[in-house]
Amino acid sequence: MNEVIQLIRQHRSIRKFTNTPLTGEQIEAIVEAAQMAPSSAHMQPFSIIGVTDRELRKKIALHSENPWIDECGYFFIFCADFHRMMLAAGPDYQDKMSRNLNYSYFYQTSVLSAALALQNANLAAQSMGLGAVIIGGINSALPELDEWLDLPDFVIPLVGLAVGVPDEFPEQKPRLPRSAVFFENQYDRDLKVQVDKYDREIEEYYGVRTNNKQKVSWSGKFISKLDRDLPLGGYTQYVKSKGFDLK
Amino acid sequence: MNEVIQLIRQHRSIRKFTNTPLTGEQIEAIVEAAQMAPSSAHMQPFSIIGVTDRELRKKIALHSENPWIDECGYFFIFCADFHRMMLAAGPDYQDKMSRNLNYSYFYQTSVLSAALALQNANLAAQSMGLGAVIIGGINSALPELDEWLDLPDFVIPLVGLAVGVPDEFPEQKPRLPRSAVFFENQYDRDLKVQVDKYDREIEEYYGVRTNNKQKVSWSGKFISKLDRDLPLGGYTQYVKSKGFDLK
Repeated sequence: MNEVIQLIRQHRSIRKFTNTPLTGEQIEAIVEAAQMAPSSAHMQPFSIIGVTDRELRKKIALHSENPWIDECGYFFIFCADFHRMMLAAGPDYQDKMSRNLNYSYFYQTSVLSAALALQNANLAAQSMGLGAVIIGGINSALPELDEWLDLPDFVIPLVGLAVGVPDEFPEQKPRLPRSAVFFENQYDRDLKVQVDKYDREIEEYYGVRTNNKQKVSWSGKFISKLDRDLPLGGYTQYVKSKGFDLK
Repeated sequence: MNEVIQLIRQHRSIRKFTNTPLTGEQIEAIVEAAQMAPSSAHMQPFSIIGVTDRELRKKIALHSENPWIDECGYFFIFCADFHRMMLAAGPDYQDKMSRNLNYSYFYQTSVLSAALALQNANLAAQSMGLGAVIIGGINSALPELDEWLDLPDFVIPLVGLAVGVPDEFPEQKPRLPRSAVFFENQYDRDLKVQVDKYDREIEEYYGVRTNNKQKVSWSGKFISKLDRDLPLGGYTQYVKSKGFDLK
């Protein structure tokens, strides 16, 4: 097994860091790795904001209810970004371009490109012995991030990446059985038995880790998250307010 | 520099393959790498379809106007997938869950998760000496893919990954200057000078490669793509038809 596959296989999200800031070389290597990801038509429709200001990090951590944003060695925010392209196009082309960028397809393209860059960054960090966790919780501070980071139209903060020297070595969570995720030529709709078996496996996993206090299954976990009225109606409104009409 | 960062830095998309199919071990390693990517709340909201049927590959290649789909050693399709979770939740929870999945936020989450898995797969393939290219063009065959691959609601084919033994070694395309992509604490809106410089750099790059026949700049390239009325209005309709209302 080569070192790349080995690193990918030993992936764990790290949520406890020593009090060590990243070096300039480490930050540079992570950003360069992100930039080397492929993107549709070489558009590179993403940006990365490194948050070094202590007060700002504390504010974002507080608004996102996420302590790792403040406690990690370095905090990156990955954004979907078509602002740079609008700027490069210049006034003659901006009207028609912005009409096309209104399609949900381009929003999806920028999310996908940003995520490819993010995973390069994530793996580059891990390859240097650092730990990292991707943080979706910044979505509870979107208008605030716009203001604090001065984000223009067509720039949407998607997720954070908290990186640092790991101060824990958590167990790996079992994945879904391959046969429930990977299909040849045709989707297999008959997944209930496999998924139920996986539910028991995850229940067992959490049971062992928490001394049976939090014996929750895979589906139990997301049902508890999704079986209530989530206040997410504002998300699309926010995305639209930034110029992506999702039409 | 470690092997992981080295591999990431030498990335090139490969669009010419020898006539060699992937081995079972290679396919397995690529799928396992994809499954090891992190995902929000461990939902793993993506699926991978390997297309081995020759006729099917030809049909998809034809509809997507993309020959590599047929010519590569193995063709994967990465999908956003919440079907498995709906199945696991069972009838008691499906109503409320599907109302929540209607939010564009969850669609974005599944696109992002699928892309993290995709980049793991991409890098795993490259680490074994294979070449690969991500193919967005499958979006021109969405209703067809639904039928051909029997994709249920909440499963959306996002992009393809064509993998094979490389039969070319293209030059690397220069990336945007780091200072136009990576910011500390605050977005830098004053990017025009840097972006113009990059435009000249890309123009030069294409000029050298095509003997000045196709001397196109970075912005020139996407302007030619985006400065017309694109027929993408159906994309959101399709996404909505699969259960993601993007509300």
